[in-house]
This record gives sequence, structure tokens and C-alpha cells, in this order.
Amino acid sequence: MSELRIDIESLTEAYASGVQPTEVVETVFARLRAANDPGIFIHLADKQDLLRQAKELGTFDPALRPLWGVPFAVKDNIDVAGMPTTAACPSFAYAPGEDATVVALLKGAGALVVGKTNLDQFAAGLAGVRTPYPIPKNAIDPSLVPGGSSSGSAIATARGIVSFALGTDTAGSGRIPAGLNNIVGLKPTVGALSSRGVVPACRTLDCVSIFALTVDDAYRVFSVAAKHDPLDPYSRAVPTTPLIERPPAPRVGIPAKADRRFFGDVAMEAGFDASLVEIEALGCRLVEIPFKDFYRTAELLYEGPWIAERYAAIGDFLETHQDAMHPVTRSIIGAARSLTAADAFKGLYALQTLRARLAPVIASVDVICVPTAPTHFTMAALEEEPIATNSQLGAYTNFVNLLDLCGIATPCGTLSNGLPMSVTLLAAAESDGKLAALAADLHATSKATLGATGWRQRPRPSAPVQASDGLVRC
Amino acid sequence: MSELRIDIESLTEAYASGVQPTEVVETVFARLRAANDPGIFIHLADKQDLLRQAKELGTFDPALRPLWGVPFAVKDNIDVAGMPTTAACPSFAYAPGEDATVVALLKGAGALVVGKTNLDQFAAGLAGVRTPYPIPKNAIDPSLVPGGSSSGSAIATARGIVSFALGTDTAGSGRIPAGLNNIVGLKPTVGALSSRGVVPACRTLDCVSIFALTVDDAYRVFSVAAKHDPLDPYSRAVPTTPLIERPPAPRVGIPAKADRRFFGDVAMEAGFDASLVEIEALGCRLVEIPFKDFYRTAELLYEGPWIAERYAAIGDFLETHQDAMHPVTRSIIGAARSLTAADAFKGLYALQTLRARLAPVIASVDVICVPTAPTHFTMAALEEEPIATNSQLGAYTNFVNLLDLCGIATPCGTLSNGLPMSVTLLAAAESDGKLAALAADLHATSKATLGATGWRQRPRPSAPVQASDGLVRC
Repeated sequence: MSELRIDIESLTEAYASGVQPTEVVETVFARLRAANDPGIFIHLADKQDLLRQAKELGTFDPALRPLWGVPFAVKDNIDVAGMPTTAACPSFAYAPGEDATVVALLKGAGALVVGKTNLDQFAAGLAGVRTPYPIPKNAIDPSLVPGGSSSGSAIATARGIVSFALGTDTAGSGRIPAGLNNIVGLKPTVGALSSRGVVPACRTLDCVSIFALTVDDAYRVFSVAAKHDPLDPYSRAVPTTPLIERPPAPRVGIPAKADRRFFGDVAMEAGFDASLVEIEALGCRLVEIPFKDFYRTAELLYEGPWIAERYAAIGDFLETHQDAMHPVTRSIIGAARSLTAADAFKGLYALQTLRARLAPVIASVDVICVPTAPTHFTMAALEEEPIATNSQLGAYTNFVNLLDLCGIATPCGTLSNGLPMSVTLLAAAESDGKLAALAADLHATSKATLGATGWRQRPRPSAPVQASDGLVRC
Repeated sequence: MSELRIDIESLTEAYASGVQPTEVVETVFARLRAANDPGIFIHLADKQDLLRQAKELGTFDPALRPLWGVPFAVKDNIDVAGMPTTAACPSFAYAPGEDATVVALLKGAGALVVGKTNLDQFAAGLAGVRTPYPIPKNAIDPSLVPGGSSSGSAIATARGIVSFALGTDTAGSGRIPAGLNNIVGLKPTVGALSSRGVVPACRTLDCVSIFALTVDDAYRVFSVAAKHDPLDPYSRAVPTTPLIERPPAPRVGIPAKADRRFFGDVAMEAGFDASLVEIEALGCRLVEIPFKDFYRTAELLYEGPWIAERYAAIGDFLETHQDAMHPVTRSIIGAARSLTAADAFKGLYALQTLRARLAPVIASVDVICVPTAPTHFTMAALEEEPIATNSQLGAYTNFVNLLDLCGIATPCGTLSNGLPMSVTLLAAAESDGKLAALAADLHATSKATLGATGWRQRPRPSAPVQASDGLVRC
């Protein structure tokens, strides 16, 4: 049983061949014990209760319930009825009366909630270390930062404890920890997944995101969870067409060579070049695009007024529970006190100016490809420079939701230093399916193993274009 | 010459038959003298200079220059090179180096700028009286408020001094003065006309608007002026297809009877009912829709954070020139000082909630029809209650730009008290053409005379559906 592959495709086959969901629940708990990392989960489902739920699933029918018996984890800023929501701030904890909309949809499709995962407090951070709970350990190398803010969800997925996990993504929290843990991070179009029942970070930008071992798995979860929610004013109806073959010869925009930022990480720089060779081998045409305005947009997120959205969400709590908050988080969000409404609108104007300037650039390509993170920071480097490193991690992520793009962080093999390479494919809102089709091909051709499990990818139903022999692998 | 009809269609015919544009310039100045209202214009073109421009127009070629020799007025918050821009605040005046984008487009099509018109200072107001210059006189009845903030532009058009005029419209400034002066007020989709070279009110909501004697005239100007402007970040490309026949049997949403607001004006209430009969006679189907959420949206404009957009635009001036400003304007805009960035985002959330709730209501009909203004206030009533009356005037206008609708205020005949009736047709963004087609038919069937000129409407090329005999006329 310990060899059970827990990716959704494998698990569905296992169920079809008679494996019982109770056996899977046992595997989940066994793997969690073996991981020996108390930082992954903040709250765990009661095992007996989960076994009972597994027994009560009824007949296996993946057409009716495409996530039948699939165990998943939920970032602890998303409500699950019967489990406290803490947002990694124990004094903030509350007992939600009902599931967040996405959780309800996933449960309705047969998925089982294993527990609530650790995060940067109030989802503010990209390194995954701003938590009063034990810091979860990077699944690939514990000396490295885990990545955040959805740290626990990414690691639970990378270790094969759960089949998939929900995160959230405002600045990159659904992509950075995917990149640093060698898994897929699907960051949907803003509003494609309902944010009802999610502790807000920046309500105009927040997404619920999906971590999985493969792109097909992530997209299967997306197809279940992406439903227009009339109770979330930011919800929007987004197509969830089946993954079809991608268009021939898509134009892939990449940051102009001179504009790329790796902060001295030559292995990552070379890895990105190698990934681009893979992408070309898939039949894509690479187009260098100037990237300075993307970075300017990224800088707006923390230097502009959006921090006031976080204050709008939890300012009352902050003012009455200062000692209960992580000091870095408190100081970041507290900075919003000095921002006026006129400042807020001036920030919106600055964003609109950048959006208008970037619109023709984005329209000139089908997809944009960037490194997911510019480098792998060690825990030691982070402790030395906690603010600067966090900010550098977001170089290729912070602009994405501000520009209303969707994205998929995609593992792309191994760097010369043995660490995982990941690129993020980005496209205009509502292109989630198109993006997933290309990401699936790229993942396949990279032959990346799955997370920290060592499992190889299964052959995909429709084989991707194979890279010819002799190509440099990333 | 004094009988020259100055609507664009008539004028174009006159030019085709040999009338000289210098004669038209003489007529413009003669009519202005005859109007004997020093409140209409803040700055007038030099007559000799305008005569010279008229002579230099070259060959009459309406296909190449569809506004050849057409005189127009420009609200004095829109830049015209060579004329000061005051926004009705003399201390604020500056000498723009170039034309606003829309002015340049209209000049390029052969139109002639007659002058800059009076307005509520900084375009804040709907009655047209908050100006340090003489208050312009309502063209229909000088005892009534002129309507604002684009007061001078509307009156210059209604009196037949100019063929058309530019206004601006954030809360209703392009519709209320049209309604109160018996002319057409085309309030385009936000961004359809560039706002470059316009003194901002609320940059996220501002529109340049068009006053004309007929819908066809207004739409002809719209077709020239609506061009995507890469230098205005809020600019967007909007179709300017020729006015085609409107769809058969459009569904027209109207405020549910119990939700209508006329503040005791029984003549206007009856006039609206009569207009609805006209609309039905055109083959439209009337659908009552609940209107409370539209009013709630309207209230956001002044009770929410949008006032901070005005402060973002002129706050620096206000703080250093308090005595130079109209006291009411200063007090309204100064209120933004106490609003925080978190307040701004909370306002945006409240708007998004209303937008989401209203989206299915708006989508359930093709067009919405409302009274343009709920009543005609007298100058005496306004002086007694300057804030409340101003706010009541916006009952049917304030929500429009917040909900990203386009609109056309359309004269609809005469009320039982002899005053003009006007309804505003509204539709989703980028439906300007569809809306104009219906507005043109409604205007024709109402047999309204043009502005204060007494001129009858010309027969339209494609005759509208005629109302059957015996129908109540509004």
C-alpha cells in the first residue's frame, strides 16, 4: 500500500481495480507520519471520521463524481465546516458554519478533506516562514525555504500525502511554493474559483489555487471547482472545456534576456534557458518581450495601495490584537494606516496606465513564459534578509493578478545543482484551458518526476510532440 | 440667414447648396448676441479668427470631413489650444499647449470651436449653478435651473447657437442639462471618447459627452470622436457602426412603478407614463424591473469614496487656494480628506456587490428607460435647498457610469405643464450604436421640437414605426 500512487489519475485506476478508499485514508496518515513534519498541517481531520466518510462514499462512479475518494488538503484560510479557520493566527481562529464554495464543490465530487494546512499568516508572504506554528520543511531540501504563502498545501502535495491541495494566490502564493517543491500550481483566472468562505487578502486580486502532481490532475480539480458563484461578487463564469490539443506553433513571450532577474543564481538562469529549448521543441515560437513594465506592475503590489485591502479585511483585528500577530505581518499590513483614499485611486490609475501600456504586449503573444521563482533561497539567507528575499521571490509573480492573467507553475526537470526547475506559463484571463494544454505538454516533455515522491510521469493519452534527441534537458 | 437651421444635417445640406461657412460664423455670433446670456460662454473664440478658419476650410467634402464647417462649443474643463481652461475656477486657469484628443479629432473632421462654456466648478454639480461666472439661463424657461454640470454647452446647443457641444459626464452632467433644455445628450460608454486633455473629476468614471439637437447629429459626432487613444489609459475601442435599424421588439426595462421617484412632480410622472406608451408603440416590450439597487448604487457615488478621486485630481490646488473655490464645491471635495485607502477599497467592494447583483437584471433586457431628471426645479427651490435638490436631480443618472452603462437622454415631447419631457435610454457598455438607433426612433415618434429653437424634426431617412392614432402623447 505504501507504494500507492496518489495522483488522481492513478488513484482513479486503483479504485476501478478494487482498492478501497479506506486503504487510501490509511496511506494518507502513514505518509504524514513518515514525513515527520509537524509544520505541514495546522488541523488534521479525525482519522476515524475520515474512514467513516470513506466508507460512506457509496458506489465508485468517476463520471458522476470525478474526485471520488480523492484526499485533499485545504489551506487554513479557506473554510471547511467542522474545522477551525486560523489563517495561521490562533487568536483570529473561528469555527465556520459552512464550507467555502470551492470546498463544497470538491466534496460534492467525492473528494475527502484531510486537513487544514499551514501558511504565511494571513497569506502575507512568499517564503512560507511567517507562521507561529512550526515552519513546514521544503519537500525537496529542508535547508531551503518552503515557499509560501501556501506552504503546507504545496508540501503535502509534493510528498504524496494528498492527491491535491487548495491554496490561495494574491501575489504568487499558489505558484512560488509549487515551483520550490517540484509540483504543479494552477493559479486560475481571478474569479474563476469562488472566494466565498476564504479569509480575504486583497479581495480584488485573490484567487483560490490548486496544487497537484500533474497538470491533468490540477485541471481536473479546476473543472470541478470553477463554477460561477452568485454569492461571490468577484466570481465570474470561465470556460472549463476539456483539455484539448493546443494550437499549433503558439507564440510564447519570454522576458528579454537583459531584463531577466535571477539574483546571481546561474543554475536557475541556465535552467530557464534550457526550459526555453524544451518549449521550442514543442513547436512554440519564442518572442522576447521587454519586461520592465511587468516589474513596475509587480512593485505596485506592495508599494502601492493594495496593502490597504489587507487592512480593510483584518484591520479591526490588527488594532485590537497587535501582540497576537506575527511582527512582520503586523508591520506590513499596519503600513496601510497612513494611506488615504486619494492614494488608493492614484494607485489604481498607475495600474491602469501600466495595463494599457502592456495590453498590446500581452496581445502580441499567445502565452508568456517566466521562471516561477528567480532562485531557491536557503533558510539561512532568508533569516539574514527576511524582507528583501521575500520581495525578490515575487519578481515573476506579483504582477500577474494585477494584470488579470491566469497562470500555471510547471515543473521542468532538474537544475545543474540538483534542485527543481519550474517555469510559469501565463495568459490573458479565461485562457485557463489553453494554458493547461501547453503546460501538460511541457511537463511531459521535461520528464520531471512528481514532487518529492520520485514517481515518474505516466504517459499522457495524447502524446506530446517529442523533443528530438540531443536537446539540452533542463 | 437668421432662419438657418444649424443642426448638422441641415447645415450640411446648406453647405452643399452653396452657403459659406463664414455666413454660419456670422449666424453663430448673431444668435449668441440675441440670446443675451453672458453665462453661457466663459471664453469665446475671436470672431475674426473664426472667420479666417472658416475661409481656410477648403473644399466642402463631407465624406472626407463629416463635420466640415460645423460650429461647436466645448465645456471649459476640456482643453482647446489657444484658449484658457478654467473648469469655472479662474485661479485654476491654465493655457493648454494642445487640444484634448476629442477636440483634435473634431477639428480634423472640419468642425470649428466657437468657445469654452460655463459649468459647475470642476464639474461637481447637476444643477448648473455652482459657478463664479453668471449662471447661464435655462433655454426653455429662465426661472428653472439650467442643469449641469455642462450647463453652458447644453444651452448653447438648445438655443441653436452651435450645432453641437462637448460636455463631460461623471454623475449625469451630460444628461441632466440635456433633459432640462430639450436636447439630446449622448453619454458614451466610459472610455469610448478619450479623456486626455480633460480636467479629471473621477478618472475611473469620467466621460466626454455630446449635446446635439438630434440623435443622428449626436451619433455623427460620436462616430468621429470615438477613437481608441493609446495615451489615455482608460480609453477603449468601441464600435461606431452606422445607425442601423434597431432589433425588432427589444425588451425595455423600466423602473417598477412603486420604485419611481418624481419628488411630487405629477406632470413628470404622467409624462414618463406617456413616454412609455410611445416606446411600446415602437414595438418595444416593457419590463418592470426593481430599482432599489440602482438607487443604492447611485448613493455610493457621493456617500462612498469616489469623492476622493476628485480630491486626487485637485486636492493640491484645493489645499493652497481654498478661497478661490466655490464654497459648496470646496466642502464637497474637501470631505475626501477623512477617507482612508481601506475606505476606498470597501467602497469598491460595495460597488462590486451591487454590480454582481444587478448584472442579471441588466442582462434580462436590451435597454433600460428612465426619466432623465425626476423633476424640473425652479431656481428659487434650488436656492432654498442647494444640496438636497442637486442630489435628487441625480436619482436616475448617478448609477450609470458606476455600472459601466452607456446612455442617451432623448427629448420626448411636452409635459402637461408645458415643460420638456426627456427619458434616458441606457444599455451595457459598447452598445452606443444600438441605443442611438432606438433613441432616434423614439425622438422621431415623439415629434419633440429641437431645443428652444422651435424647429421641427426633419423626416429621418428610414422612417420609424409610427404610433397609431389616438395614443396619448407625452
